[in-house]
Amino acid sequence: MEIRNPREWLCLKRTVRFGETDSAGVVHFIEFLKWCHETWEESLEKFGIVIQEIFPTIHVNTVQPDIALPVVHCEANYFQPLYVGDVINIELYPKKINEFSFELQFKFIKNGVQIGTTSLKHVSINPITREKCELSKQINLWLHESRLNF
Amino acid sequence: MEIRNPREWLCLKRTVRFGETDSAGVVHFIEFLKWCHETWEESLEKFGIVIQEIFPTIHVNTVQPDIALPVVHCEANYFQPLYVGDVINIELYPKKINEFSFELQFKFIKNGVQIGTTSLKHVSINPITREKCELSKQINLWLHESRLNF
Amino acid sequence: MEIRNPREWLCLKRTVRFGETDSAGVVHFIEFLKWCHETWEESLEKFGIVIQEIFPTIHVNTVQPDIALPVVHCEANYFQPLYVGDVINIELYPKKINEFSFELQFKFIKNGVQIGTTSLKHVSINPITREKCELSKQINLWLHESRLNF
Amino acid sequence: MEIRNPREWLCLKRTVRFGETDSAGVVHFIEFLKWCHETWEESLEKFGIVIQEIFPTIHVNTVQPDIALPVVHCEANYFQPLYVGDVINIELYPKKINEFSFELQFKFIKNGVQIGTTSLKHVSINPITREKCELSKQINLWLHESRLNF
Repeated sequence: MEIRNPREWLCLKRTVRFGETDSAGVVHFIEFLKWCHETWEESLEKFGIVIQEIFPTIHVNTVQPDIALPVVHCEANYFQPLYVGDVINIELYPKKINEFSFELQFKFIKNGVQIGTTSLKHVSINPITREKCELSKQINLWLHESRLNF
Repeated sequence: MEIRNPREWLCLKRTVRFGETDSAGVVHFIEFLKWCHETWEESLEKFGIVIQEIFPTIHVNTVQPDIALPVVHCEANYFQPLYVGDVINIELYPKKINEFSFELQFKFIKNGVQIGTTSLKHVSINPITREKCELSKQINLWLHESRLNF
Repeated sequence: MEIRNPREWLCLKRTVRFGETDSAGVVHFIEFLKWCHETWEESLEKFGIVIQEIFPTIHVNTVQPDIALPVVHCEANYFQPLYVGDVINIELYPKKINEFSFELQFKFIKNGVQIGTTSLKHVSINPITREKCELSKQINLWLHESRLNF
Repeated sequence: MEIRNPREWLCLKRTVRFGETDSAGVVHFIEFLKWCHETWEESLEKFGIVIQEIFPTIHVNTVQPDIALPVVHCEANYFQPLYVGDVINIELYPKKINEFSFELQFKFIKNGVQIGTTSLKHVSINPITREKCELSKQINLWLHESRLNF
């Protein structure tokens, strides 16, 4: 059986784009939080999860998720500015909180220096009643496998 | 019976925000198109339309629209740059194309000078089958009343 | 001398727009943080500050600010979902931390119910050296006047 | 001498992210135009251009560009909806218009089907005077090499 290294799906990379900067010449603060969510989506994909089974879509040929995973808390700390064209490494540290929720911690690294951190807390709910429900098998597996060897 | 002046719901105003600029120091080009759609929403509201009856939402207590109005074409022309804090007037000129579609033309004016124009073309479709369908009564009324006296 | 009520510039309002929602049918989490910054800009304007003297711009006819105010920390808590067309009241509670920094706390209220809170921490820096510097007179005045009578 | 194939830097790929959808369940129309600009930036990088020499930044250690390349016209046509998780190929067709300007045409392809097209027209200007100036050597080289073998 193949032993996979969580670094494959938990260490990602992106390049700062022009539209992500503001007239102070640096990346606008909300972009870091956009990157978090996108990095999480990319991580699930790299792990092997079909993204349309996690995030709601109206696509008719897809099995709709009966669970939504809204963000209930987020935060970000900014240590150094980022500029257009900067390449950053994003490290994702997932942590299960309980049967209903998990936290995603992110470290942003440029040239070996940590330039910011963020955190997202997600809760698993029924999208109609909006009541808490257990995390799906897929998310539990991803959380479980992401703890190993890191 | 009250005679209303379409200028009330077709001439709107907004102020450029910091997050809408890029590191060239001016408003990033896609913001104009975001403003168009938001201006259109505001115009419908000012006219008296309940916005949740036009745009899809999962809110349980709302009658869901059985018509979607996707943008099938958009364009923008930029004549002069805009800066943080600039106040702009946005004039909206709606035009019915046929039973299924309409065009929204926008003029952006700063200190009396036209600094850009945009246009959105919307088509009325069934959101499940995505086939064309007739425009709703509300949209037709708004289009009709918007032609008067302008 | 006119006594002004801080509620004029610290209690603002906005309407949720279609482009701010995601395919879960509710407002995407990062929009709350975008609203914070925009609400702060609007508050400064309503107080009487010329916004171009606070935020950098390349506009040639404007005195450039020699101070930048980057966000060094932000966070948000989400209690209830928001839908397209929702009208929310945003209450802003500014707090000076020290000579160099301040915190902006925001409460988001819909139909009298608090549906979320956010917080931004800003630090005053020299935009070239990026070293801390004292808050400007204008920001200090706004912070001071915002404490009164609330 | 190495002969490079323009397809390397003119045929790119991206995955639709959750935050790019709206409550109609499909990608919001302005995202296509955001993707265009980001695809262009990625194309310049893949071609070998240092991105900070093209787009303005306040980074102190970088030679600042003395040319800005604002978008003066953009347009988009939408043929089919896109959903979260969709993988799209983006083909970029650059075309020099004259010494001062160029057009970028984009085709968006999903599963072999063209689902949209966009176009950006850029003009080369002096960022201080905002008067037209000749395109930089780098942009001219990229435009020239992009014509070959496609």
